Amino acid sequence: MQNLKVYNSLSGKKEVFKSIEKKFVGIYVCGPTVYNKVHLGNCRTFISFDLIYRYFKHLGYKVRYVRNITDVGHLEDDSENAEDRIIKKARTEKIEPMEVVQLYTVDFHKTLSLFNILPPSIEPSATGHIIEQIEIVKSIIKKGYAYEINGSVYFDVSKFDNSYKYGKLSKRNIEDLISNTRNLDGQSDKKNPHDFALWKKAEPQHIMRWKSPWSDGFPGWHLECTAMSRKYLGEKFDIHGGGLDLKFPHHECEIAQSEAINDGKECVRYWMHSNMLTLNGKKMSKSTGNSILPEEIFNGKNSLFKKEFSPEVVRFFMLQAHYRSILDISEDALLASEKGYKKLCDAISQLSEIETNKETTGFDVTKWISNCYGALNDDFNSPILIAKIFDAVKYINSLNTGIESINKNDFKLLEEKIKFFFHEILGLNLIKSKSKTKENNYIEELINLIIDIRNKARFDNDFETSDKIRDSLLKLGVKLKDSKKGTEFKID
Amino acid sequence: MQNLKVYNSLSGKKEVFKSIEKKFVGIYVCGPTVYNKVHLGNCRTFISFDLIYRYFKHLGYKVRYVRNITDVGHLEDDSENAEDRIIKKARTEKIEPMEVVQLYTVDFHKTLSLFNILPPSIEPSATGHIIEQIEIVKSIIKKGYAYEINGSVYFDVSKFDNSYKYGKLSKRNIEDLISNTRNLDGQSDKKNPHDFALWKKAEPQHIMRWKSPWSDGFPGWHLECTAMSRKYLGEKFDIHGGGLDLKFPHHECEIAQSEAINDGKECVRYWMHSNMLTLNGKKMSKSTGNSILPEEIFNGKNSLFKKEFSPEVVRFFMLQAHYRSILDISEDALLASEKGYKKLCDAISQLSEIETNKETTGFDVTKWISNCYGALNDDFNSPILIAKIFDAVKYINSLNTGIESINKNDFKLLEEKIKFFFHEILGLNLIKSKSKTKENNYIEELINLIIDIRNKARFDNDFETSDKIRDSLLKLGVKLKDSKKGTEFKID
Repeated sequence: MQNLKVYNSLSGKKEVFKSIEKKFVGIYVCGPTVYNKVHLGNCRTFISFDLIYRYFKHLGYKVRYVRNITDVGHLEDDSENAEDRIIKKARTEKIEPMEVVQLYTVDFHKTLSLFNILPPSIEPSATGHIIEQIEIVKSIIKKGYAYEINGSVYFDVSKFDNSYKYGKLSKRNIEDLISNTRNLDGQSDKKNPHDFALWKKAEPQHIMRWKSPWSDGFPGWHLECTAMSRKYLGEKFDIHGGGLDLKFPHHECEIAQSEAINDGKECVRYWMHSNMLTLNGKKMSKSTGNSILPEEIFNGKNSLFKKEFSPEVVRFFMLQAHYRSILDISEDALLASEKGYKKLCDAISQLSEIETNKETTGFDVTKWISNCYGALNDDFNSPILIAKIFDAVKYINSLNTGIESINKNDFKLLEEKIKFFFHEILGLNLIKSKSKTKENNYIEELINLIIDIRNKARFDNDFETSDKIRDSLLKLGVKLKDSKKGTEFKID
Repeated sequence: MQNLKVYNSLSGKKEVFKSIEKKFVGIYVCGPTVYNKVHLGNCRTFISFDLIYRYFKHLGYKVRYVRNITDVGHLEDDSENAEDRIIKKARTEKIEPMEVVQLYTVDFHKTLSLFNILPPSIEPSATGHIIEQIEIVKSIIKKGYAYEINGSVYFDVSKFDNSYKYGKLSKRNIEDLISNTRNLDGQSDKKNPHDFALWKKAEPQHIMRWKSPWSDGFPGWHLECTAMSRKYLGEKFDIHGGGLDLKFPHHECEIAQSEAINDGKECVRYWMHSNMLTLNGKKMSKSTGNSILPEEIFNGKNSLFKKEFSPEVVRFFMLQAHYRSILDISEDALLASEKGYKKLCDAISQLSEIETNKETTGFDVTKWISNCYGALNDDFNSPILIAKIFDAVKYINSLNTGIESINKNDFKLLEEKIKFFFHEILGLNLIKSKSKTKENNYIEELINLIIDIRNKARFDNDFETSDKIRDSLLKLGVKLKDSKKGTEFKID
């Protein structure tokens, strides 16, 4: 089999994947800040890493997949008086911050489970790791890369940059950063505006606060991921992922924090970033109204799309793009995905009706399997995998119409693998085909009975009755088609 | 309306409920230790408190319902070398303790959501509140009711008992405790065998550990609930609940901890305990095989019951007993509940078909509503409420058969309230009635069309055709009944 190649955002290249420990992969993906219903763009990130998680497990790795919950410290912006997003929500909704956290954690889990996203191996929360974060701040101070001022602790970016290199993930250099950052005189305790908080002293009215050597306060947002990834995956681990918007400053700051304690040693082997999701060609944004929630897509209650789309279809739509490409969601695109998804489900459902033959014609199953794996091994290229699967769908349809034939072994392989890619890797489920339900079989039998009665009338030259029956069926949406072979029907 | 009365385990009496703050109720319920799939007995506890939570919300209280997740510190037993349940599981399954926590937290949430149990307002975890627990240990030491020895801290039960009173919830006195506890010489650092750990020094191989003023270690199990209830509900709050098995020693120790810091002041207004669930007349126990998991009941894959039962039926079954009574689960009991549940669903589904009249006969709706509330106000007496609902079911059925009649206003009230108690308070959902689906409506229309054709044949004296149609329908399970009113049908 081909080697798995992974695009490393740090090197900007696809690299052959080699795990640090044999047969073990540690993955850390930045999870949501639970102060609001989960954003559709976030869902794209978690669907992307769900496919990656599933594929690593299939390759036989023991995967420890850590995805955190940010429940403190994520401020509205970078200014000195910025408010914690969760506390702000708690204030506006007049509830306790941890009630906000619970409300949106429950919503997050529910939405992700509708998307058939597997739960991670560990889902640690920032407030659950305050001690660990305090320990890291202590270490960074000890190493000389952080300073305390008025009860808060800041990371000294310039000093770190002198020893090591700041900005290597986002390809920024410190000089540009310095010239691009506004220095708001007197508003900040920081030595330099590009320094970032490791620990913030809490104002008296601030509810979320913990004791620390510096003050009663709370950790800076970038700190939690460093603390939790080290705790559960070690000083250096295989993959760190997240949305592209987190590359700077969040991931850059994580690198600085880790390398500061590790004397400049690399903390992550592969950095992976999933790209943006736009809506109708524009950036999603609540303030401009160009925004939609997952549940609004599922229940059709929105002003953007004329109909509802199932979570399966939305997941399929997202996987039809590579995780590193910008993807635009629109009604037309979803309609196309829905159509394709149905076609795919139909073909898989019809596999059970295929009769095998002596010879396989028109398709090389072994080569097809190899191509599917080839797509996955090429940086988890799900759109190519899906295109390959549609090649198989086309072939299955021509087996059904008898244009091509397949032998037993090939069929077994094809059936097994197409189902495997569909269910296990893409994480999709078959739409219940209408024609398969008990009720629908019953409806067919009743219609056939009516057709029999009508044929009897036609045989007796009682065309008044036979026409009346045809018209009555038409009113119920049943169209009859008489031919030499007999009468066929179609339900609208 | 009658006053709500709550049985207080502390006083051993039903007391009129009065919240500490007007229109606000704080409830703390001990949640699961997530080292295994959730126990059916635990589900009973959470279903009981779900009804209580729902009813308080209905009464217009702003309810803060806190239910914790125990993810550290719950030892196998009380001996000095007892192992943490989660670490033991992690060791046997060769995964990280927090992977055990995640696995069984996900399972717990899934099972509770199948039972239609509402998520609590806050779901804090023990590992997420280590700092808060350390602060409480410090306070207890400062007050003189705990001592440090070899890096561990123990609560001094005798000293506490001298100042205040230990054992008041479980009605035990310290002398009996002393004489009943084995003192295993040399095995313990404790001054007295009935002292309990607040902080334990971790052995070198112990994975779950945090820095503290006394040692790298972990908190005692009883501590977390004191820390988390105080943090989210305050020094004194309204209701503390849990399974009866937690009354001693867990809740007794919680009282001691809280009162030690609060100078003997009461910490909880009402203590509520839900009773045991037995299986086929015996205590559930894995080792004797007398044990069943919720999922095994739902999917029917078990050796105890011949068929599967839905989560709705099991929930209904549990609510048919009062939370303070011992309840025995068995196949016969579940079959009876299933039958009752179906009867109830049928009656509610048929409400839409009832025609109102000028007069109401045979039922006093206002009195009935008052009786239903009376049951709930009498310590959340769900079996009485359900009995009252069955009175209404009987009445609805006699409305359907035309034996009794109801006026429009009474009907509106009855319909609204029975649905309200069913959905909102008991937390039940209607079993999807077959006749309500789109497919089934369509089937009815097709059969009616066939009946029209047959009637035309009968009108034309073409009895050969009409009999043939009747026989063909019979083969499809459709029985026709001709009468003066016309032809009716019934599908088997």
